[in-house]
Amino acid sequence: MATHLSHFSNAKTNFSINTKSKLGRSSAPTVVAAAQNQSYWASIDAEIDTYLKKALPIRPPESVFEPMHHLTFAAPRTTASALCVAACELVGGDPSLAMVAASAIHLMHAAAYTHQHLPLTDRPRPKSEPTVQHKYGPNIELLTGDGIIPFGLELLARSVDSARSNPTRILRVIMEITRASGSQGVVDGQYKELGIDGSEITGLELIEYVCKKKEGELHACGAACGAILGGGAEDEIEILRNFGLYAGMVQGMTAKENPMMEAKIERLKEMALKELGSFDGKKARLELISSLVEPSLCAAYT
Amino acid sequence: MATHLSHFSNAKTNFSINTKSKLGRSSAPTVVAAAQNQSYWASIDAEIDTYLKKALPIRPPESVFEPMHHLTFAAPRTTASALCVAACELVGGDPSLAMVAASAIHLMHAAAYTHQHLPLTDRPRPKSEPTVQHKYGPNIELLTGDGIIPFGLELLARSVDSARSNPTRILRVIMEITRASGSQGVVDGQYKELGIDGSEITGLELIEYVCKKKEGELHACGAACGAILGGGAEDEIEILRNFGLYAGMVQGMTAKENPMMEAKIERLKEMALKELGSFDGKKARLELISSLVEPSLCAAYT
Repeated sequence: MATHLSHFSNAKTNFSINTKSKLGRSSAPTVVAAAQNQSYWASIDAEIDTYLKKALPIRPPESVFEPMHHLTFAAPRTTASALCVAACELVGGDPSLAMVAASAIHLMHAAAYTHQHLPLTDRPRPKSEPTVQHKYGPNIELLTGDGIIPFGLELLARSVDSARSNPTRILRVIMEITRASGSQGVVDGQYKELGIDGSEITGLELIEYVCKKKEGELHACGAACGAILGGGAEDEIEILRNFGLYAGMVQGMTAKENPMMEAKIERLKEMALKELGSFDGKKARLELISSLVEPSLCAAYT
Repeated sequence: MATHLSHFSNAKTNFSINTKSKLGRSSAPTVVAAAQNQSYWASIDAEIDTYLKKALPIRPPESVFEPMHHLTFAAPRTTASALCVAACELVGGDPSLAMVAASAIHLMHAAAYTHQHLPLTDRPRPKSEPTVQHKYGPNIELLTGDGIIPFGLELLARSVDSARSNPTRILRVIMEITRASGSQGVVDGQYKELGIDGSEITGLELIEYVCKKKEGELHACGAACGAILGGGAEDEIEILRNFGLYAGMVQGMTAKENPMMEAKIERLKEMALKELGSFDGKKARLELISSLVEPSLCAAYT
């Protein structure tokens, strides 16, 4: 498989590559397509929400589960979760197979977001971020994050009870998610972003590194997990992982709203679409998934 | 199986039950036995250390992995890890099968310990605890804990690559560990201990609840995981889980050094030994594992 589909990367659709275009420029047909794409991602998000609300009811001890519930849904969305479901569908899997992994990815993201915004004595609040509203004090937010991380992985491990589950695939997904959210992924990005690691890299290079480790690797993980759970072939998993990495970086870097990054973002979009161009799949589905790098979609999420 | 072995619970050994005895009272033969028991647990700890040091080298990014390495080994020991290995051996499994789970339990414990001792703006330092030495600032300690949790579970998920591994058992162990270390286990205990949940329980009842959720459930988890990985029968797993719960509570409550808790501790020891009394296993091994509730062993760990 994995043949280059020239009709895909050259098609005159909303996902066609035009490295010369300004971010956000759009014509009427693109607006329609963009709305369709947004509704695709929004419908996946709604399903993940439904799943999470059922999995995470406010139950005793309420003092623990109420903040857990709140902070899970208070964290901004990451498209890494929806990408997990979309990738599963793209490789021909039933999207419901990816729902637990997509939820676990959101939970890891919500815990990381909560901890990154804890006001600590030795942590200057990042200049670029608006003041985060805290419903709880740091004590509760810290422990709640600590409860959310194992909860996400518990959900995954428990999903083995489902008749359609595959233990080896679930373990592989746990490996992917723990690696992406841990010390070689999101946590490394947070170290760099918070400037606590004495790193030599600065400026745009630093932003790129942070976006790679945070949004990039989380999206790469989401895409790979979806492909694994959907029963994708190894080359499909790797194509989707690469697409996720680039698309996640586009998402992260677009959110920085730094005009000096536009060229780099365009290059990453191109790389993302090139990966998909080598994917032997249904054109309509490829169009939907490729819309992840579109400015309107990025804007809806950031 | 699971017949009551009267020779065990009535034996005149260091693990015999004497609810009238003062904690720590010992005669000469008991001292010898206690030394043997301590060396048993110490040898398991040394193996876990060796495994962890190999699994967690100081590698790039060093700014992330150096604190991770340090905080993993700076946390006090929990016998829940060694109990995991001992339980595996008791049900007839090769103890090496439990080494990853034992290490993961230590990692969860180390992360929880690190986060519980973070100086937060709304967190009064617990009166009963000595001042904890911090090598790093709260910023680094927070993120390092966040890296340690997924790392422990990643090690477990990765262990499926071993030829002798059993994916279903590993998933079950991940479920056990995430549940015990999350919002219904250790995190719940921390909420209560830090007094941030508006709980109605106070005094000795509160201490008992905290010790149940923290040391109790972590030891129950350790014992159950060891029995699962060693291929124990369901009733063996449950006996060892109960033993672990009581033994962990004994460990936690003994550390409080509160004379008003002595009677309760003795009752828990009795319950722990009664569980083992219904276990159909080698007497010498049962003696070793039962030594977990002995005061000299508790003292060595707290």
